[in-house]
Amino acid sequence: MDKVLGIDIGGTSIKAGVFSTEGELQTATRIPTRELVNEVSFAVVTEGLVNLLARVDATPDDVVGVGLDIPGPVDDDGRVGMLPNIDLNPEGLQRALKRAFPRAKLAFVNDANAAALGELWHGTAKDVSNFVLVAIGTGVGGGVVVDGKVVSGAFGAGGEIGHITVNRNEERSCGCGRHGCLEQYASASGIVRVYKEECKKLGVAPVSLEGPTDTLSVFNALEAGDEAAKAAISCMCDCLGYALAQISVILDPQMYLIGGGVSGGFKLFAEKLRASYRKYCLASSAMVRILPASLGNDAAMYGSAFQAMQN
Amino acid sequence: MDKVLGIDIGGTSIKAGVFSTEGELQTATRIPTRELVNEVSFAVVTEGLVNLLARVDATPDDVVGVGLDIPGPVDDDGRVGMLPNIDLNPEGLQRALKRAFPRAKLAFVNDANAAALGELWHGTAKDVSNFVLVAIGTGVGGGVVVDGKVVSGAFGAGGEIGHITVNRNEERSCGCGRHGCLEQYASASGIVRVYKEECKKLGVAPVSLEGPTDTLSVFNALEAGDEAAKAAISCMCDCLGYALAQISVILDPQMYLIGGGVSGGFKLFAEKLRASYRKYCLASSAMVRILPASLGNDAAMYGSAFQAMQN
Repeated sequence: MDKVLGIDIGGTSIKAGVFSTEGELQTATRIPTRELVNEVSFAVVTEGLVNLLARVDATPDDVVGVGLDIPGPVDDDGRVGMLPNIDLNPEGLQRALKRAFPRAKLAFVNDANAAALGELWHGTAKDVSNFVLVAIGTGVGGGVVVDGKVVSGAFGAGGEIGHITVNRNEERSCGCGRHGCLEQYASASGIVRVYKEECKKLGVAPVSLEGPTDTLSVFNALEAGDEAAKAAISCMCDCLGYALAQISVILDPQMYLIGGGVSGGFKLFAEKLRASYRKYCLASSAMVRILPASLGNDAAMYGSAFQAMQN
Repeated sequence: MDKVLGIDIGGTSIKAGVFSTEGELQTATRIPTRELVNEVSFAVVTEGLVNLLARVDATPDDVVGVGLDIPGPVDDDGRVGMLPNIDLNPEGLQRALKRAFPRAKLAFVNDANAAALGELWHGTAKDVSNFVLVAIGTGVGGGVVVDGKVVSGAFGAGGEIGHITVNRNEERSCGCGRHGCLEQYASASGIVRVYKEECKKLGVAPVSLEGPTDTLSVFNALEAGDEAAKAAISCMCDCLGYALAQISVILDPQMYLIGGGVSGGFKLFAEKLRASYRKYCLASSAMVRILPASLGNDAAMYGSAFQAMQN
């Protein structure tokens, strides 16, 4: 039986899944990795994948596609750009996978783009051909799907919606070197930063936080009626709704999906986000749907497998 | 020989062209119209088209496609939305054309989207599959092309890039009811308005202007060293460059094309516009090309014919 592998490459491990060609996830595992730069490390990955296939009675010859999502830019031709956050030699890994799975088509996909494709294949956006996924984690990523295909961009910057400018007067720099990007207010780190600033303004101590991206504690505080948490989430919704309204005058998608870790709090901010979008959008696009993504942390794994099948 | 008709519907006349299926414009004419709402007016159009075909020795049976571009929204399914600026019954006209040209596929396209398709078929964007056309006339329209197809949008608002917000602090309302839209600064009327304001600030009389959209006179003043004209064109370039940078973080196209009446002055503002874009864009997308459109006022006629062939 034909199988497709979806591989989500992170900083300290990879997560790999075996899929049917219809998009059913049959088994998955996590393989620890230090860096993916030499034959020894590539062999750890390919052996791990062969063992994973054995769990569902499959062999390397059954594999028709291997998709890999990475936290960095991949352009329209599938070329991988600069990868500041992980130690990966994409060409080397590609060669090793090609040797191990000779029938397979290979594809690299940007992680947020992969998450969008996953939702298209088997998630909330099934049968929706034009939508935008917003992946809110440490940063804000995005996946733009037009006519059923992800838009990677001529320079790999398609879907970089965390860098839509929402505040031209911002003095702080974004990681990209520009000022006032969506990511500065609506990412996990942005939410926590704004929360702390609001606490300072109100002269109250923040709740105990586990690090600079602990939005779970901010959401808990929000539920307990914390005014600073309310202000931080309002700011997040205002900025995100404004950014989505900008996307709508360009692409006018059918649907926005909110994914990534922060989407765990979706129910707490959904109404505020929808109201903010409607405040800023063109009247004609007010009826767009804004929904939570449904595949959680597996979305990118699904999507990279899907992309490998499309190639 | 198979022919395709491209029809550009304006307020007081239609412009129609006969094309080969390869995109060669063989003949064109202008047919005056009052309103396109009843059988008498539809007959004026269809008879005009039959006469036009006769010029190139063709008959109604040769026509395999009829495309019509209109100054209003058309959604992804080809449905025509509200048309505030023209008196047109699209269904009636469609029926009349179907009777007159029984072999033809029919298509409605938004005018700026049609202009983008025209440039794709036979203009500057030939063989470019991902680009955005900015049509700067009385207003600012746009046509977004992804993977060789125009993005009309779920609610017909795809490519409404004149309504990208460039100034959240603007107090004046845009025609859309929102505030600080690109169109308020970078359209012909926006340029003329800013020019007059700059004259007032400088305490000088504006050059003689033929109406509220006479950018030709502003460009002439610019060439003569007029400081207010310089400030107005700088403002236009700043706003447009900023807006294109917003598009690039979403779609990251290969190319931007500047069309519409104002593009007549392209050489005068090209360098300033490119510098403004580079000031605001993500570093990865700095190398995008920003070029003038090449089909002038015929672009939409080309594009609507092209769309009819694609349907």
